[in-house]
Amino acid sequence: MMRGKFITFEGCEGVGKSRQIKLLEEYLVKEGIKYYLTREPGGTTISEKIRNIILDGANVAMSDECEALLYAAARVQLLKETLKGRLDAGELVICDRFVDSSFAYQGKARGLGYAFIEKINDYAIRNFTPDCTLFLDLSPEQAFMRKGGADKTDRLELSGLEFHKRVYEGYKELAEKYKDRIVAIDSSGTKEQTHAKIIAALKERGII
Amino acid sequence: MMRGKFITFEGCEGVGKSRQIKLLEEYLVKEGIKYYLTREPGGTTISEKIRNIILDGANVAMSDECEALLYAAARVQLLKETLKGRLDAGELVICDRFVDSSFAYQGKARGLGYAFIEKINDYAIRNFTPDCTLFLDLSPEQAFMRKGGADKTDRLELSGLEFHKRVYEGYKELAEKYKDRIVAIDSSGTKEQTHAKIIAALKERGII
Repeated sequence: MMRGKFITFEGCEGVGKSRQIKLLEEYLVKEGIKYYLTREPGGTTISEKIRNIILDGANVAMSDECEALLYAAARVQLLKETLKGRLDAGELVICDRFVDSSFAYQGKARGLGYAFIEKINDYAIRNFTPDCTLFLDLSPEQAFMRKGGADKTDRLELSGLEFHKRVYEGYKELAEKYKDRIVAIDSSGTKEQTHAKIIAALKERGII
Repeated sequence: MMRGKFITFEGCEGVGKSRQIKLLEEYLVKEGIKYYLTREPGGTTISEKIRNIILDGANVAMSDECEALLYAAARVQLLKETLKGRLDAGELVICDRFVDSSFAYQGKARGLGYAFIEKINDYAIRNFTPDCTLFLDLSPEQAFMRKGGADKTDRLELSGLEFHKRVYEGYKELAEKYKDRIVAIDSSGTKEQTHAKIIAALKERGII
């Protein structure tokens, strides 16, 4: 049995990631291609419990390192408990976010550095390199405008924008560093245009 | 303001660690020495939530790597949120278990290796080397006999013993590797004898 293919989706907030995953699912169902979809952080009972701690708004005191380690813990559990078996059984696995999110969000935007993220995600990086990472390439400013913009005097929104700009820079650096694995999908067009680019990229790489 | 002193307690299950911490507390109170006592995993709201996931018996599927990363996450949160400030303010901080527990339990006994534990605990190791680590030195067999022994046909108990023997081996290796920091306290005598050795060790090092 050949090892299954592993696809991950990445990108900044508001770029239409969920919608594109939905469109890919519809395509795969129509074509009769079996797949397993999961998400990060989460995907197992233990990982979902960790997710709840990460996303709980009450945990404002959480340090950046703690957050990064919790993501890594949720990830390794998902890999060992679920994804390893499915990939070994030859399944097509799609994951909504993976290690690149940790590189872009914690490593770049939070400033922990890529080396730290590599160290704590050692198991994932050594054993679960995605066959293809679809990076939905749309800058936070563009995503922001598409949502209809917002009051520019809103300080919180602006500081959020600065953070997301660093996340985006991180993704651009990663796409450059891992050219063979990461496909930057121009997501500035309509959702149908972006979807067509995703299908083309996956076919080109012999994944579907 | 001089940085406060940082003491950690380590040892296998059943060696009387909690009792010795209690006796040290009574001594410090009697001598009018202020201290702050905390424990691992735990010590902050977020770390206690992480502790609940680690210790929840329902989470039998937890991988060794996930467990080690959760310990590291709880630890870094405790350090950044609480211990850093207290040590910077010159306080005497006592912690029930610290990085050496991860080395002995996850690194040695679970077989993840010391290098992995070092990598994921980078922040703690770089910034929070204890001034003195009190390793209550008593083998699991001795601790086991002290508890009155148990039915030798109990397979689970025996497999538990094998695990704890590896933890003990880990601690012995650490005590050898970090001679200047880790004090092996012979804990085979009475609780008063062990307590006297702890006080002597702390005085000798100018900690109390």
